[in-house]
Amino acid sequence: MGTQSVIQTMENNAADVEALLDRLLPKAEGPEGRVAEAMRYATLGGGKRFRPFLACESAKLFTVSEDRALRTAAAIECIHTYSLIHDDLPCMDDDDLRRGRPSTHKAFDEATAVLAGDALLTFAFEILGENETHDDHRVRCDLIVALAKAIGTHGMVGGQMIDMASEGEILDVGALTRLQQLKTGALIAYACESGAILGRASKEAQHALHAYAHDLGLAYQIIDDLLDEEGDSATLGKTAGKDRESGKATFATILGPERAREQATMLADQAIQHLEMFDDKADSLRGAASFVINRNA
Amino acid sequence: MGTQSVIQTMENNAADVEALLDRLLPKAEGPEGRVAEAMRYATLGGGKRFRPFLACESAKLFTVSEDRALRTAAAIECIHTYSLIHDDLPCMDDDDLRRGRPSTHKAFDEATAVLAGDALLTFAFEILGENETHDDHRVRCDLIVALAKAIGTHGMVGGQMIDMASEGEILDVGALTRLQQLKTGALIAYACESGAILGRASKEAQHALHAYAHDLGLAYQIIDDLLDEEGDSATLGKTAGKDRESGKATFATILGPERAREQATMLADQAIQHLEMFDDKADSLRGAASFVINRNA
Repeated sequence: MGTQSVIQTMENNAADVEALLDRLLPKAEGPEGRVAEAMRYATLGGGKRFRPFLACESAKLFTVSEDRALRTAAAIECIHTYSLIHDDLPCMDDDDLRRGRPSTHKAFDEATAVLAGDALLTFAFEILGENETHDDHRVRCDLIVALAKAIGTHGMVGGQMIDMASEGEILDVGALTRLQQLKTGALIAYACESGAILGRASKEAQHALHAYAHDLGLAYQIIDDLLDEEGDSATLGKTAGKDRESGKATFATILGPERAREQATMLADQAIQHLEMFDDKADSLRGAASFVINRNA
Repeated sequence: MGTQSVIQTMENNAADVEALLDRLLPKAEGPEGRVAEAMRYATLGGGKRFRPFLACESAKLFTVSEDRALRTAAAIECIHTYSLIHDDLPCMDDDDLRRGRPSTHKAFDEATAVLAGDALLTFAFEILGENETHDDHRVRCDLIVALAKAIGTHGMVGGQMIDMASEGEILDVGALTRLQQLKTGALIAYACESGAILGRASKEAQHALHAYAHDLGLAYQIIDDLLDEEGDSATLGKTAGKDRESGKATFATILGPERAREQATMLADQAIQHLEMFDDKADSLRGAASFVINRNA
């Protein structure tokens, strides 16, 4: 599948996820409505929805119904959005621009941003816990525990902690790889894993998807670093050049742009190889690997 | 059951919950260890563990095994601790003292405090999702969805949002009651409800416990407000007089101390009446209502 057709599939999926999120997210009602408003502001109207796409495409491999895959994808996007809101806070990365608009603490205020993030994190577990996500309670518990592990102390939050604690330090490639595997890789891996959990896939299939997601996530991050170096804020929808400015070690600064791009391409190829056991149903996931390398935002 | 013996039961339960939390909480290992350290700092070594006590005592009504009740209680305490960490942040209530020690963002830093709160919130769902909490997957899903609702937009987070948004405004008793029902009442009610979910109790028993928790939670909050007015920081372990200083409407300021205490006593009596259908197994819960009125911290 070519990059163009992957982008089309991704856009269609993004529209479905957007519609579902709009339906599921709490409405801004009552005196507490401000927090719902902020959740909607941060979640709706933008974003590539890359993680939801991975969740839906991996679910397709195991003929999971679209409704279930989309609900799981929506929960994952709530988690991703919560992490962006909290990461953008002044006490964290202090970023005023996100998805081409003022970040949540700028559009609202810091307290509302903290609460909106907390509520989105909570809401993701509510979505996954409900019957509509899967009629097998065990599957829902598995989805929940795997998500909690992916985003907890030894997952996404741990990655952000390392990132904050290592500001100004010079990380080597090994340390940076681990940081990124936790900070962004773990949720990307979970997105792929969730399809396998929903489809009660074999251990073998789960391992293959995990290996795919692992390489894909790292390639994604390396390109992210390159775009931060080379891109402009308007295209990215977030502040460009921030990492260099803050003296943060990135793959682009440690490896240099050329070696970084080589490394990302190699990882994307490797990701595709992990999908060998799947038939043409995995073509979108194969295409996603090319998309990751060729994207400009 | 007299107040003294309730306090003894509560202290024993607190020790059990503390030991379990110490065993369950992630160890401070690796470069991300700082967040685990902050989670442990905030969660261990202090606190009345009132919500865990309610969870364990309500579970006893339905002969739930102690292990299961304690795990659920530990998850609830993680949620309570996360809410304290985030509420104490400079952008929220800006409080430097908690449980008699520097609050988490003072002992560590703001970024670490945000992340430790996020990780504790996440970890609570991990605990509840795991097999050890109950071997019936449906029960675990029920625990998870009910918790998410209790602490989400129309629960605890919503209450904190109203609290932040209404600073400087004059709330009437009705608005203040709703605020507190969300901000503190919903998690207290969940603590009681969790025992009924674990024990697959009848709807009637669930309703009775809910009504009990509802009245108890409000009585608890009114006394909290009185203690804030009348208590001192050393006994409370948190900054006293803060509400009056910040011009916040509280039950103590709106009703005046005498009427506030009357109201709390009336609610505690009413709470006890809701337990009519239960035998002497509910004596600790009955005693808890007296404890709430007579506590001085």
